Amino acid sequence: MQPIVECVPNFSEGRRPEVIQAIRDAIAAVPGVRILDIHSDVDHNRSVITFAGAPEPVLEAAFQGIATAARLIDMEQHRGEHPRLGAADVVPFIPIRGVTMDDCVALARRLGQRVGEELGIPVYLYEAAATRPDRVNLADVRRGEYERLKEEIVTNPDRAPDFGPCRVGSAGACIIGARQPLIAFNIYLNTDDVSIAKAIARAVRHSSGGLRYVKALGVKVGGLAQVTMNLTDFRHTPLHRVVEMVRREAMRYGVTIRRSELVGLIPQQAILDAAAWYLQLDDLTPDRILENRLFGEESEMDTE
Amino acid sequence: MQPIVECVPNFSEGRRPEVIQAIRDAIAAVPGVRILDIHSDVDHNRSVITFAGAPEPVLEAAFQGIATAARLIDMEQHRGEHPRLGAADVVPFIPIRGVTMDDCVALARRLGQRVGEELGIPVYLYEAAATRPDRVNLADVRRGEYERLKEEIVTNPDRAPDFGPCRVGSAGACIIGARQPLIAFNIYLNTDDVSIAKAIARAVRHSSGGLRYVKALGVKVGGLAQVTMNLTDFRHTPLHRVVEMVRREAMRYGVTIRRSELVGLIPQQAILDAAAWYLQLDDLTPDRILENRLFGEESEMDTE
Repeated sequence: MQPIVECVPNFSEGRRPEVIQAIRDAIAAVPGVRILDIHSDVDHNRSVITFAGAPEPVLEAAFQGIATAARLIDMEQHRGEHPRLGAADVVPFIPIRGVTMDDCVALARRLGQRVGEELGIPVYLYEAAATRPDRVNLADVRRGEYERLKEEIVTNPDRAPDFGPCRVGSAGACIIGARQPLIAFNIYLNTDDVSIAKAIARAVRHSSGGLRYVKALGVKVGGLAQVTMNLTDFRHTPLHRVVEMVRREAMRYGVTIRRSELVGLIPQQAILDAAAWYLQLDDLTPDRILENRLFGEESEMDTE
Repeated sequence: MQPIVECVPNFSEGRRPEVIQAIRDAIAAVPGVRILDIHSDVDHNRSVITFAGAPEPVLEAAFQGIATAARLIDMEQHRGEHPRLGAADVVPFIPIRGVTMDDCVALARRLGQRVGEELGIPVYLYEAAATRPDRVNLADVRRGEYERLKEEIVTNPDRAPDFGPCRVGSAGACIIGARQPLIAFNIYLNTDDVSIAKAIARAVRHSSGGLRYVKALGVKVGGLAQVTMNLTDFRHTPLHRVVEMVRREAMRYGVTIRRSELVGLIPQQAILDAAAWYLQLDDLTPDRILENRLFGEESEMDTE
């Protein structure tokens, strides 16, 4: 089975198409890498490029993307609603298949070292790649944004980067790490009472005592109450468990689930896990899926 | 999206490895075809080879497999438990993606004509490719097996083939057609009372008044009652509906589903349909699956 790593770098440019295109082209030029999605936001002045491939090409493509962003984006000029530390602001590696989280942590460290040494950009490691507990959470690392980091990195030893110099140039700093794939998932209730969605969000989310890898908010969308969620580790807190818990909590308020929706992409394994749980199909492994025998499993099939 | 057809020919040889290997090699030698599975049964004296690819290579590979089997298998010598008409006994084309059932019917007819004309083998079209209602069901076409067909094809106009001569040689006849993918699926109950599995099988199967595309039997396996099923069209009678109906019927006898199991492969769409139904995820199309963006969708991705 060919190993696959996903990389979802966030760049501090969402307004100049030629800059976004140049970063995209630098990534796409690496053989063996495939760009899956590009999302730019004008208000945030930020672009998210999703790409994937085998570990080594993905590492190289991430470096090329960072180098291009550092060359074309001047943080002194950058304004946008989204918090950021640098031109290539956040670069997470995500294990998709045939790759462990430890492999992704190793990739993050290798990339961090190269970015620090070759580009002279300070690098902070975060999430699974973090070297200190206070750098696990992205929000903590990004506190004060580019403007405050510029001063603090020189004077405050606590803000010394994991790689690269203790000073920021026009490219700012770069936050590199490894994390599980994130599933963005919304559940609509058959009510317009947003207070019920808020109560359910409180019940299921980690921060207020719920499931460990769930972030949730209650909002109102299109006239219906919605529980909007991020599942940050579907292997440990699976989709079906979240849906059934929301369903049970909704029932307590006399409402039901109208429908649910996915934002963006989902790893096949998350869907297999849900189908296996509901159908009680304990042996539903990816190699039982016909299409998986046809695509991307060269080495396995050649032995047949 | 690259169109994919699956082909699952059944050959009347399950004992001589060199013959099975020669047929397999003839199929595998066609560029663009991938062999997914080979299953040989000594008692049935029969082998099932599963392969797939784009329509034209699959058509060519099926022809090469039939020609090789016709050359190496002598139906006068063949004995086995499984009913059969010829060396290449049954050859179904199955739409997997980007291909309609009509496309597969057209493939079956083109293959039938070639087998009839170039190999001089009588060909009967069955299932979706059948030209007469009494040839839709495989069992009807195969009635009397090779031994009786040999005589009847000459004397009985009703047994005139769709293609090829009105006489059989040592390769017998060939039954070619198009059908939906078949899902072989078993549900174990938490009881050893096989009469409950039999009652549930009667409730869910088409032949006794149940769901249209379900065949079912109640059996006992490993000390547990089991409902063993074939789902012959998962697009119209989906997996989740069958499981929930079995669950409800089992409840009426005071038992529950212990676990279920898949025999062989399953199309990804069947799993997506089940996950979408249980999770109420109406927008779960194949292009939401991360891996589908990475493999086998060259033409779509290049436009990004």
